[in-house]
Amino acid sequence: MPIHAVLVFESTNHGNILVLDGVIQVAERDEFAYQEMLTHLALNSHPNPKRVLVVGGGDGGVLREIVKHECVEEAILVEIDDVVLDVASKYLPNMSSAFKHPKVTVNVGDGFKYLEDISKETDDSKKFDVIITDSSDPEGPAQQLFQQSFYKLLYNALSENGIASCQVSENEWLNLDLIRDLKTSCKLVFPVVEYSYTCVPTYTSGQLGLFVCSKDPNLDVKKPLRVWDEETEESINKYYNKEMHEASFVLPTWARDKLK
Amino acid sequence: MPIHAVLVFESTNHGNILVLDGVIQVAERDEFAYQEMLTHLALNSHPNPKRVLVVGGGDGGVLREIVKHECVEEAILVEIDDVVLDVASKYLPNMSSAFKHPKVTVNVGDGFKYLEDISKETDDSKKFDVIITDSSDPEGPAQQLFQQSFYKLLYNALSENGIASCQVSENEWLNLDLIRDLKTSCKLVFPVVEYSYTCVPTYTSGQLGLFVCSKDPNLDVKKPLRVWDEETEESINKYYNKEMHEASFVLPTWARDKLK
Repeated sequence: MPIHAVLVFESTNHGNILVLDGVIQVAERDEFAYQEMLTHLALNSHPNPKRVLVVGGGDGGVLREIVKHECVEEAILVEIDDVVLDVASKYLPNMSSAFKHPKVTVNVGDGFKYLEDISKETDDSKKFDVIITDSSDPEGPAQQLFQQSFYKLLYNALSENGIASCQVSENEWLNLDLIRDLKTSCKLVFPVVEYSYTCVPTYTSGQLGLFVCSKDPNLDVKKPLRVWDEETEESINKYYNKEMHEASFVLPTWARDKLK
Repeated sequence: MPIHAVLVFESTNHGNILVLDGVIQVAERDEFAYQEMLTHLALNSHPNPKRVLVVGGGDGGVLREIVKHECVEEAILVEIDDVVLDVASKYLPNMSSAFKHPKVTVNVGDGFKYLEDISKETDDSKKFDVIITDSSDPEGPAQQLFQQSFYKLLYNALSENGIASCQVSENEWLNLDLIRDLKTSCKLVFPVVEYSYTCVPTYTSGQLGLFVCSKDPNLDVKKPLRVWDEETEESINKYYNKEMHEASFVLPTWARDKLK
């Protein structure tokens, strides 16, 4: 089911803003806080990510972040709606800058079906080291991306010790019960599931939560396995840094206890 | 100059809400995120805080947090507007619960003038180990609480190695330039000034910044000097914990670099 309504408008103070089915997806002013964290928490928790998949993410921001990692050899994006891709190319040039990057392939299609096909592969080299789910909210086309069956597909489409990051469309202030339920579902599939958050004023309550999931039961995703040298990190990222990687998993006491 | 308009209303989902001069000050649903951090970042950075002053803070929330520290012998609040105190007593009972605590004295008066008097004391034991500025925004009555002359008063009203925490009415997303300017002013007075933030959906952009300032040039306020045992910490606080103490000083790269 494709998205019904795509709107981009130029705001007075927040740059161009993408709205899908009436819900703001990204604003140029603060999108980097979301894209960088969703991407680098996952990629820097993997020792050597070569093949990376993005489910959704049609604005291109996550791809832009992925190609900052030189070890990545191939980044594939599967977006269900080609209009989003067109709109991003035209009106969100900074986000969609990696669409034409030599390591990038952009596919129009159903991410759920794509993952089903990859899950059936017996050759681990055709699976992904990291999969990033950058979907719209769990109403409408993205609904099935918030269910246990989806986490199972993610797991099976990942190579050995693969990492997934998924935005959870919620934060601790809005619906902590739902985050706990999603985490419980996800934990039935992945041995490691940690909740992190990033501060993005454009989203309701000013923050958005995400899960970082690992197939390796011994991995502590709260600490980056790989880091950029300080100068590089500072020159390529506006939000993510290695201290922020760790800090983003530190929750207020009431939320921490509920998600334990 | 007292506050002109005081409003409390009962909201559908956020509890009772206090509005001063048209600006929301606190909502019962998330006020603890602000009150706990403003208080415990300062108090837990001091080895043995006995005398604590609150400038502003007429809703009582900061006092409620201060008396959680058993070492505190005396907590004095100076609020310019008695109407705020009355309204808090009646409509914000959870916040104002410490007004009648045996260690607490509540004064109606001008915090600036109060600090001037304390600054002139030559006896260190009449000064304060910790001073917390919990003011309204820097327009109207609280304007002078955001100037270098105020930081100087704070410094002089603190005992040896005293600590101050001040809310800065801003966050990195709204006005990072102003935060940098305030920090520069404050650094002309205090040898240690660190910027921290707390996530509070009620405030614009969902977060509020604060400074923690130390007279001891060798103190690292980013790490708590004192901690509660885990069980106590969990039972008395909803937001603050020792990991959150450290994490709250970790800033996104662009903000960190600007405030360096």
